[in-house]
Amino acid sequence: MKIPQDTLLLTPGPVAVPHFVMEAISQPVIPHRSQAFYEFYRGLLTDLQYLFQTQAQTCCMVGTGTQGVEAAMYSLFRPGNKVIIPAMGKFSQRWVDYGKIVGLNIVEISIAWGKGLQIDEIEPILKQHPDSAGIILTHCETSTGVGIDLEEISLRCKQVNPEMLVVVDAITSVGVIPFYLDAWKIDCAVIASQKALMNPTGLCAFAMSEQATGRLKATHPADSRNLFNYLAHAEEASYPYTAPVQLLYGIHAALSWIKGETLAKRWNHSHQLAKYFRKVLGQMGGEIFSETPAASLTAFTFPRQNMEGVKEKLEREYGIQISGGQGELKGSILRVSHMGVTGKEEMKKCLEGLRNIQS
Amino acid sequence: MKIPQDTLLLTPGPVAVPHFVMEAISQPVIPHRSQAFYEFYRGLLTDLQYLFQTQAQTCCMVGTGTQGVEAAMYSLFRPGNKVIIPAMGKFSQRWVDYGKIVGLNIVEISIAWGKGLQIDEIEPILKQHPDSAGIILTHCETSTGVGIDLEEISLRCKQVNPEMLVVVDAITSVGVIPFYLDAWKIDCAVIASQKALMNPTGLCAFAMSEQATGRLKATHPADSRNLFNYLAHAEEASYPYTAPVQLLYGIHAALSWIKGETLAKRWNHSHQLAKYFRKVLGQMGGEIFSETPAASLTAFTFPRQNMEGVKEKLEREYGIQISGGQGELKGSILRVSHMGVTGKEEMKKCLEGLRNIQS
Repeated sequence: MKIPQDTLLLTPGPVAVPHFVMEAISQPVIPHRSQAFYEFYRGLLTDLQYLFQTQAQTCCMVGTGTQGVEAAMYSLFRPGNKVIIPAMGKFSQRWVDYGKIVGLNIVEISIAWGKGLQIDEIEPILKQHPDSAGIILTHCETSTGVGIDLEEISLRCKQVNPEMLVVVDAITSVGVIPFYLDAWKIDCAVIASQKALMNPTGLCAFAMSEQATGRLKATHPADSRNLFNYLAHAEEASYPYTAPVQLLYGIHAALSWIKGETLAKRWNHSHQLAKYFRKVLGQMGGEIFSETPAASLTAFTFPRQNMEGVKEKLEREYGIQISGGQGELKGSILRVSHMGVTGKEEMKKCLEGLRNIQS
Repeated sequence: MKIPQDTLLLTPGPVAVPHFVMEAISQPVIPHRSQAFYEFYRGLLTDLQYLFQTQAQTCCMVGTGTQGVEAAMYSLFRPGNKVIIPAMGKFSQRWVDYGKIVGLNIVEISIAWGKGLQIDEIEPILKQHPDSAGIILTHCETSTGVGIDLEEISLRCKQVNPEMLVVVDAITSVGVIPFYLDAWKIDCAVIASQKALMNPTGLCAFAMSEQATGRLKATHPADSRNLFNYLAHAEEASYPYTAPVQLLYGIHAALSWIKGETLAKRWNHSHQLAKYFRKVLGQMGGEIFSETPAASLTAFTFPRQNMEGVKEKLEREYGIQISGGQGELKGSILRVSHMGVTGKEEMKKCLEGLRNIQS
């Protein structure tokens, strides 16, 4: 089959992979049980600390974002543990469903899609469930574009119940919008390669506080979903199974680039893109779907338009790929990414296409 | 860090990634919820049927080989199920350990490392445990280089107990040595990207008989380790989570190449390399470690030599990377791959280096 070579990819993950990342991935594989690998991986784990803004332990795992969050939940909680999960879209709902599958005692907070968890909503629930072992927060819900005030919510959780673990799906946030693992007292954050890191899908990464690592179930090495194994090996800068060496090359290249740019500049880049995109979109009659939109992406709608039709036309006539709605939002919203190396020019092209189609 | 660009990689996984695979991986990512992706993935799944020699369903999953085999075990069996597992090296032992972790009732057959499961050994055990739900067979045990007579053993299992599922760790066998899923009545086989498919580590693939798919636990989509989800989506040529599009490009390129070469030729390639390598090695005083070596790799030793020292010297002085022993074999054996695009020239270079070092 023919892969289109000249499409503008603006989906909110995966994002386009820059040339320097692909060049890094194309380097020859080195054996993962070698000093050269350990040195390389140690540097990468340190760069991840910068990305997560933490002194805590970091590690990588072969997996999608879903596999990553599920591994964190599986590793940190035991069947019967009470875990609070606000569900406000397709992905946060998935963590509720998974928690039930693995036998956690889930306290679900149902929030209308398009809205985000508010600090007043969480406080009574924290007090009502003082025996909670943890909470799973989705920093930016990719299906709706909603961001939450993670700082306030996480700190409040730890204030009311210092024993509970704050676990964050940070897949569409870390490296894109401000995120401080240590300052915000987050215990575990999960990211995936195809978002801010602009890499192929297939790798996820974690940062974990001492309080959380102390809660990990020590286990036999033959349990490849248990983060205990990845973190124990990461202390020696090794990987517990066959290491995804080339995927790690790509992550390393992206992290080096982000370090060079600085996180502050990266955060501002997405912020400016989102601001610009939303301003022009508003002038065109577009409506932002999210009540509290994160800068990672914009979910929007044009009143009285078939949004799937707009999406298809944008691809067919302009070669621009954006995402539609997921689950119950299929057909009613569109989503455009502000992550990665795409800049104002790409936003302009997308907006011009949208303007022509919907007018 | 500097990645050495001119090393000869002869480890029994990962194997060197050929240029045409890297070129495929470097293509722009396409959205995974698109007709273009479905068409592409459908072709790939059909090519996998050729690789596994089957008409059965196939699917891919983000994961290492270990994650793949564990996902198969997790998906096909329920806690309390009796499952027979011959342990004859580091990897087959891992399946025993994992089975215990997930609460399976494991009937372990302990076999000395270097030997392989024999047909006479399995027969009384099958009769002793007529209530077995399945057996996990490792076709080629990468840690010892041992191959088993999978055809005879699988057919005997199904003859004695047609209800049991034959699950095969085929990671270091499919695409390298003869393997026929349908003809040998295998219910589920697992492979990983970094062996015969000569791809970066990070993807695994499965073929599964109707008898096995009928046994899968239908589950909620939010259970990313359950193969039910991957197979149900594969029927529509879609992927249940964010698809590892670029990794799939690489697998597709390798499968197209293998199809062009034909499997028969690929099997003979490894067979001839192994034959040649072992003949010259024998002339040099090397001893094959495995009683029944598979053609995928050679595990060997030089009597009265420090094998780790030989390995390090081969790398330092000749730029050739091979593997040492794992687990209890660390220091006592070396392992050289006969998989992938490496040919007789590379075998010669390795043998010359070994001859110079050990003489």
